[in-house]
Amino acid sequence: MRLAVDAMGGDNAPKSIIDGCVKALAEFPSLSITLFGDQEKINEHVTENDRLTIVHTSVVIDGEDSPVRAVRRKKDSSMVMAVQAVKDNAADAAVSAGNTGALMTAGLLVIGRTAGIERPALSPMLPTRGGEGFLLLDVGANMDAKTSHLVQYALMGHIYMQKVRGLENPRVGLLNIGSEPGKGSDLVKRAYTELQGLPINFIGNVESRDLLEGAADVVICDGFSGNLVLKTIEGTAMSLFSIMKEEFTSSTKNKLAAGLLRPSFKKIKNKMDYSEYGGAGLFGLKAPVIKAHGSSDSQAFFSAIRQAKVMHEEDVIPLIEESINKLPKREEEDIT
Amino acid sequence: MRLAVDAMGGDNAPKSIIDGCVKALAEFPSLSITLFGDQEKINEHVTENDRLTIVHTSVVIDGEDSPVRAVRRKKDSSMVMAVQAVKDNAADAAVSAGNTGALMTAGLLVIGRTAGIERPALSPMLPTRGGEGFLLLDVGANMDAKTSHLVQYALMGHIYMQKVRGLENPRVGLLNIGSEPGKGSDLVKRAYTELQGLPINFIGNVESRDLLEGAADVVICDGFSGNLVLKTIEGTAMSLFSIMKEEFTSSTKNKLAAGLLRPSFKKIKNKMDYSEYGGAGLFGLKAPVIKAHGSSDSQAFFSAIRQAKVMHEEDVIPLIEESINKLPKREEEDIT
Repeated sequence: MRLAVDAMGGDNAPKSIIDGCVKALAEFPSLSITLFGDQEKINEHVTENDRLTIVHTSVVIDGEDSPVRAVRRKKDSSMVMAVQAVKDNAADAAVSAGNTGALMTAGLLVIGRTAGIERPALSPMLPTRGGEGFLLLDVGANMDAKTSHLVQYALMGHIYMQKVRGLENPRVGLLNIGSEPGKGSDLVKRAYTELQGLPINFIGNVESRDLLEGAADVVICDGFSGNLVLKTIEGTAMSLFSIMKEEFTSSTKNKLAAGLLRPSFKKIKNKMDYSEYGGAGLFGLKAPVIKAHGSSDSQAFFSAIRQAKVMHEEDVIPLIEESINKLPKREEEDIT
Repeated sequence: MRLAVDAMGGDNAPKSIIDGCVKALAEFPSLSITLFGDQEKINEHVTENDRLTIVHTSVVIDGEDSPVRAVRRKKDSSMVMAVQAVKDNAADAAVSAGNTGALMTAGLLVIGRTAGIERPALSPMLPTRGGEGFLLLDVGANMDAKTSHLVQYALMGHIYMQKVRGLENPRVGLLNIGSEPGKGSDLVKRAYTELQGLPINFIGNVESRDLLEGAADVVICDGFSGNLVLKTIEGTAMSLFSIMKEEFTSSTKNKLAAGLLRPSFKKIKNKMDYSEYGGAGLFGLKAPVIKAHGSSDSQAFFSAIRQAKVMHEEDVIPLIEESINKLPKREEEDIT
């Protein structure tokens, strides 16, 4: 399997990216990697490997770049070149820890959608208390979702969880503001009805307060809602940790007690750290494109590589295409 | 000021409700309260007070009742009777800790909307790390919001925070998936433009990850998004506390250290407890209706009463009506 990697994306690039690649090459003998980025900087960290190729570019898309403009103007950036390699069939999949919007745009404009897919979905795994995690999609590839998009997300999530995470019959839930049928916006009410007709294990509505308790394995929503929920989970956890830090350093007694609990706090933070689960898949493209978390360390980037590899080897994309094309043809929706 | 109180709503009714009322009567000499509920049960907790009247009813709307049906069929329930008292001008405002959907329905059907208001908004105060809190609206009174609704929420939030929370120039933010202008769904993009034209301190987009850090004093969103965010904050905090509990009871050393930190954990939980900030206002009705949190203790119910009182005394509703009617007339929207 041939992987294209953007060596320059993310907070810890290129070191953590390269370390993750080296680890993946050691672990997976069938893997070969092409790294796109600054040759000189890459050389500082890389070890000789005949399955590792470096393609030099000094252009980088950074976090501040406007996605569409960056992808159009920086065609020789490490990110766009990595994605282009997939388009040119020089690689089977691409991974980047860089600008999320730019990677989504590059995937869509350069590689393009799987036949039958109306909108790709950005799909991270999020943590649960029990540790098994859940897939949330979409979290922002598509701001104004239609019912038909949610139906496609459900199928993609189902297949992904079966093939990549190994769940036989993943529980697919619809993110909603109440658990009873008939709740929510017009969009989710229509989606509820259609999801009931799919050949998946649709378990109905799930509420956002139950997500981290493992209410479902796959949670379907429009990209605006998904992004809000994702960032609310992050923000609430971060604010709580800040409050605790303030409180636990407010007296000597507290400092001592909190010191004893340090290993536990670390465990809890790790449990909440979704980079452990790999990157966010950009589902619905003609090839696997994985967005590794911007703060990825080498282990997180390794997970993202493995994810791309399994998606490729398990034929996730052909299976998605097949299942989408089996859906009954539908009338165009007039509203949302 | 004459207040109608549903004595039977909430997890701790009627005791905490009555205790909250007794406290409020002691604190506010101008307040008189009519309690609606089971006379016998109320008598167990009540102390004689010539500003307290009890109106007996044995009918209760519970948490499982379907809101619209409950309000239509249980006209003699403690909740609907309390709301009806406002409609009949026997009271100036109503407070209940019962079924949220039923209270919203009763408010809308019995009391009705302020002239010019298109949709009421359910508006709780949520906690922030610094302790000042922020107003989030709407969190579920209206599932499919239009731009004009968001504009009205902004005005209502602005006036409420000025008059009830005493902020001179409250920062009003639009909940969005990025901070830059031009981000988000069609709805929020249109709202962004219109909010810029209002006579309020509109600070632009705010992201959900920054809410608990105090990014804005008033946060505007559609009811579906707001409900998701509200319940994600609750759920994330609850799941994190559960994970901590598991972790901190996993060894004797941990138990000892966590025992020393118990007062700190309690402080942190209180900080996250938004019942401290009073109830959720149902803004946009002809009179103040406050939904106290279902788990309200007497102190939380007291806060909800004070909130209703201040809303009444500060003429929040006439001010809302005036400011809505000053808005330039707009064309009907064709889409969302």
